[in-house]
Amino acid sequence: MSSTAGQVIKCKAAVAWEAGKPLSIEQVEVAPPLAGEVRLKILFTSLCHTDVYFWEAKGQAPLFPRIFGHEAGGVVESVGEGVTHLKPGDQALPVFTGECGECPHCKSEESNMCDLLRINTDRGVMLSDGKTRFSKNGQPIYHFLGTSTFSEFTVVHAGCVAKINPAAPLDKVCLLSCGICTGLGATINVAKPKPGSTVAVFGLGAVGLAACEGARISGASKIIGVDLVNSRFEEAKKFGVTDFVNPKEHDKPVQEVIAEMTNGGVDRAVECTGSIQAMISAFECVHDGWGVAVLVGVPSKDDAFKTHPMNFLNERTLKGTFYGNYKPRTDLPSVVEKYMKGELELEKFITHRVTFSEINKAFDYMLKGQSIRCIIRMEE
Amino acid sequence: MSSTAGQVIKCKAAVAWEAGKPLSIEQVEVAPPLAGEVRLKILFTSLCHTDVYFWEAKGQAPLFPRIFGHEAGGVVESVGEGVTHLKPGDQALPVFTGECGECPHCKSEESNMCDLLRINTDRGVMLSDGKTRFSKNGQPIYHFLGTSTFSEFTVVHAGCVAKINPAAPLDKVCLLSCGICTGLGATINVAKPKPGSTVAVFGLGAVGLAACEGARISGASKIIGVDLVNSRFEEAKKFGVTDFVNPKEHDKPVQEVIAEMTNGGVDRAVECTGSIQAMISAFECVHDGWGVAVLVGVPSKDDAFKTHPMNFLNERTLKGTFYGNYKPRTDLPSVVEKYMKGELELEKFITHRVTFSEINKAFDYMLKGQSIRCIIRMEE
Ligand SMILES: NC(=O)c1ccc[n+]([C@@H]2O[C@H](COP(=O)([O-])OP(=O)(O)OC[C@H]3O[C@@H](n4cnc5c(N)ncnc54)[C@H](O)[C@@H]3O)[C@@H](O)[C@H]2O)c1
Ligand SMILES: NC(=O)c1ccc[n+]([C@@H]2O[C@H](COP(=O)([O-])OP(=O)(O)OC[C@H]3O[C@@H](n4cnc5c(N)ncnc54)[C@H](O)[C@@H]3O)[C@@H](O)[C@H]2O)c1
Ligand SMILES: [Zn+2]
Ligand SMILES: [Zn+2]
Ligand SMILES: [Zn+2]
Ligand SMILES: [Zn+2]
Repeated sequence: MSSTAGQVIKCKAAVAWEAGKPLSIEQVEVAPPLAGEVRLKILFTSLCHTDVYFWEAKGQAPLFPRIFGHEAGGVVESVGEGVTHLKPGDQALPVFTGECGECPHCKSEESNMCDLLRINTDRGVMLSDGKTRFSKNGQPIYHFLGTSTFSEFTVVHAGCVAKINPAAPLDKVCLLSCGICTGLGATINVAKPKPGSTVAVFGLGAVGLAACEGARISGASKIIGVDLVNSRFEEAKKFGVTDFVNPKEHDKPVQEVIAEMTNGGVDRAVECTGSIQAMISAFECVHDGWGVAVLVGVPSKDDAFKTHPMNFLNERTLKGTFYGNYKPRTDLPSVVEKYMKGELELEKFITHRVTFSEINKAFDYMLKGQSIRCIIRMEE
Repeated sequence: MSSTAGQVIKCKAAVAWEAGKPLSIEQVEVAPPLAGEVRLKILFTSLCHTDVYFWEAKGQAPLFPRIFGHEAGGVVESVGEGVTHLKPGDQALPVFTGECGECPHCKSEESNMCDLLRINTDRGVMLSDGKTRFSKNGQPIYHFLGTSTFSEFTVVHAGCVAKINPAAPLDKVCLLSCGICTGLGATINVAKPKPGSTVAVFGLGAVGLAACEGARISGASKIIGVDLVNSRFEEAKKFGVTDFVNPKEHDKPVQEVIAEMTNGGVDRAVECTGSIQAMISAFECVHDGWGVAVLVGVPSKDDAFKTHPMNFLNERTLKGTFYGNYKPRTDLPSVVEKYMKGELELEKFITHRVTFSEINKAFDYMLKGQSIRCIIRMEE
């Protein structure tokens, strides 16, 4: 038992008081975990677009003050009643989606969309009692995605915490909490290209680059990166991309350009943009007979996916995936092992590193499109 | 060698001289097979909607005179040069799609859409020389789907002929040439329900009933038949259908009705209607996390499949299939064996039987919606 178990912990957190305003590092109080919860000491966290999106709060009802952050690695400080798979001192990754172990999704081999712990971007409180574990001078501070990792300590549902190899370097594997696993799993678990396949990846942000990395690991012979920004291509080569297509530079639809490059279409396509046009192109650029397209990007509320049904009848497959179909508790440990064995390369995703007090710089890098991932070290 | 090998054969055929006019049984001349072709003596054939559709010629450029027919069983009369997998006397099924064995589709485990022998509804001649093998008094008569089985003898590309068990009763297994394999394979090969699954089948025509039969064989626990015509349900019970939904009898979308019946959606859905609305409903009625929908129906030229992309991101899969993903030469023999072992029941698809001279009755039964399949016996 750690000496802080059962106690309120005072620690530093980066609090977002208002939409779009710089985060402010201050002392907050973190209540102990209730039954089924875990309190984690966060050591490294990184910034993902989803944090920025909800911090800007342009598309949704704003919920402030809030502690953002959902890509992170840490150590278990204490566990609530009934938590058996984790103990103080364990290395762990918190994840924005969870695994209750009991629902039909958790029991299905095919799904990772746990009924109880599935991502919920609106909820700012803990599931068990509808309250926050964060406060400052008695004022509650809301949670984000059930993780709130921009804090030295955070409380998370135990179903959202994966225990990982104690030897894994948290300043790298913390990336597996969100974007990297999303893209990697979209290719490896869902598109499943065979060695020698051709793969197109739409969108070369962090998620798309991870999808490319999945194609590289799968032994794809040709990886076509598709993005509207030419500068993405140089970086993308490190992730195995062999060819680049910028749809803006062609007068015909990008699916036709790709069909010409690949004798009728790619074997697999993975869409990582959130653009409905890219989703349609990604589907229509796969080869008839056996092509599989996988959607990853989060679309706008009013988007409609539209295609001629003959594109399906000609034996194409379209699937979507959430968090790369990984079940966080069951599958993350083995992804960490893939990194430990040198199969999965994480270093190349890390373009910037800052300390916790500099966290607003991470927002700048992302807003300016300069970073793939910026690692934030909690200890100064 | 049969005594007719290499000779022109005079025999009876049901010729369609004009769109929508009754077929006329008359003597035609059937030229011997060229290299890579096979001449078959047809013993049993049946009528499929596709014959009726092209005979009515409402949607397409009419091509007459023509000999229709593509579901049939017969015996090899003679083979052209270079045909090694068939010899005179073999029992065989001609199929409207083929297997050249050489193209990327034939070499792929996943596709049956042979580049060379894929269905072609416009072509009325043989591939090798662009000519017909049928004529009457020197006037060429066009082929249909490369099979033209409404003739006592017909010439077919060898890649479109499956050699089957000589003990198989052709008056039943002839059904496997088209509709039944299409629906059966859509379920067994593509949707692949696990034992105990829930399956919805949209459209309870011959193809849909075959999809139900596939679900029954797969051990589905609940098979929901969806059709606009209530009378289809009684018949459908024989094919394992346990529940019936008529979309017209509900004020809410049928996908919501099905979700309520199945705790969130069916595990698998197979669409066998050709209606775009049914295609969309079939996709949207599968469970998130693991649901798979399969499209079989042939849509109209201007249809657009439209859905919100979140339906994919929530881990649903949509696929289409052509001829149930069966490769005719490779896979049909084993479907025939499924029937021989009593796993697959074909008798219940046969609602009518007529002799060749009564072939126009088969058209009547189908046009009035009275038949599932009408078997036409060539020998009086
Ligand atoms: N399904 C999930 O579980 C999950 C998890 C995390 C992120 N996401 C989503 O994945 C997507 C990608 O995330 P990211 O962090 O890599 O984003 P990002 O903004 O860093 O990258 C997106 C890239 O797509 C490119 N792009 C935009 N429109 C395009 C088009 N029409 N054609 C080609 N390229 C286009 C952009 O130029 C950019 O480089 C987002 O929609 C995000 O919401 C999904
Ligand atoms: N993909 C292939 O390889 C292949 C091969 C053969 C046939 N087909 C297609 O399969 C489809 C079915 O063939 P069939 O011979 O069984 O046709 P059919 O006309 O006998 O049966 C279709 C059934 O669908 C029902 N239906 C129509 N609209 C509906 C709706 N919105 N909701 C529910 N039910 C609806 C009809 O009432 C009818 O009972 C056709 O589109 C045909 O062209 C495809
Ligand atoms: Zn669960
Ligand atoms: Zn994220
Ligand atoms: Zn072929
Ligand atoms: Zn047919």
